[in-house]
Amino acid sequence: MLPPKVRRIAQLLTRLPGVGEKTASRYVLHLLAQDPAVCRELGKELALLPDAVGPCSRCGNLAESEEEAPEGAPRICAVCNDPRRESSLLCVVGRVHDLFAIERTGTMRGRYFVLGRLLSPLEGVGPDDLPIPKLIQRVQDEGVTEIIVATPPSVDGEATALFLKRELLPLGVALSRIASGVPHGGDLEYADPITMGRALSGRQRL
Amino acid sequence: MLPPKVRRIAQLLTRLPGVGEKTASRYVLHLLAQDPAVCRELGKELALLPDAVGPCSRCGNLAESEEEAPEGAPRICAVCNDPRRESSLLCVVGRVHDLFAIERTGTMRGRYFVLGRLLSPLEGVGPDDLPIPKLIQRVQDEGVTEIIVATPPSVDGEATALFLKRELLPLGVALSRIASGVPHGGDLEYADPITMGRALSGRQRL
Repeated sequence: MLPPKVRRIAQLLTRLPGVGEKTASRYVLHLLAQDPAVCRELGKELALLPDAVGPCSRCGNLAESEEEAPEGAPRICAVCNDPRRESSLLCVVGRVHDLFAIERTGTMRGRYFVLGRLLSPLEGVGPDDLPIPKLIQRVQDEGVTEIIVATPPSVDGEATALFLKRELLPLGVALSRIASGVPHGGDLEYADPITMGRALSGRQRL
Repeated sequence: MLPPKVRRIAQLLTRLPGVGEKTASRYVLHLLAQDPAVCRELGKELALLPDAVGPCSRCGNLAESEEEAPEGAPRICAVCNDPRRESSLLCVVGRVHDLFAIERTGTMRGRYFVLGRLLSPLEGVGPDDLPIPKLIQRVQDEGVTEIIVATPPSVDGEATALFLKRELLPLGVALSRIASGVPHGGDLEYADPITMGRALSGRQRL
């Protein structure tokens, strides 16, 4: 029923997380009903996005290419470029999304290292698939003395944390793991047994 | 936190229905993590969309421009171009979405006329804002003998239907209105009183 061009865009939009065929067609029809300038600008920006934005060559965070940089030049992100950040403190995260979640707290004084993936035997991700040599190199080059392991408190996240502990302890840095427990505003009654167990075992002196 | 280019795209994506800032950033981050070809193609297609697709100059349905058509040439949609459609039967709908909903039934033998909006005193849409002269012209030019008014069974839709009745009856065409009642698979217990009332008053001889 939809014209082929509209159908093609709708099909591409179904690649977005949580977007099915119906939502995708709604999106395209909505864009068509709006000011065409919005659709054109969105299209132009998206077409340029993969070249304009990519992983920071130092930490893996999102970084924008310099306007006049030649193609393929290394990108450095805003956090790595920020001189107020302490080089001695490094926070290791699984994905860029996790880095943003930590940045939103406004309390991270150090820099980051994005692994890009977590150990996952089920998905065939083994130790060799993690950028450990690059992480160790960075710890040594930048004089890192403290590392916060902020992988998620899931099976894969915990496995990755344990693996990182084994790899990083020999470097003589202070290692810590983010706390897992009942979330702020959460009700003990609704906490699952694993979360509740962690809240107990991870209790802190009052 | 997000690089400016990513933020700009996320901002444009919040123009989509039901997409807030959080969902929009998720969409952009997901596109960045995917094959860059998807992002580039989506961008290219979106940038061209407003020129490639627009309202059918006859009925208002979505229509694709001919490949070699000069800019601004009238577009004719697939339904209007279909010679198997009966010109004597016309279905008047409010929006293109409604046309698609009717097409999905596969039972409409006639053509369409998309009003583009419904009468809505609250939103300041009056009788002069509807393309009634164009509709009457089309009824006369194409020898339409039957019109189905398929505006939605809402306050605005009903008001528009009554207004269309007044405008179209003098033309001597057979006028009908789509049925309103308990939907297929619906439970009488959960039908709201207005729907249930309509199902009763619109009852059909068995």
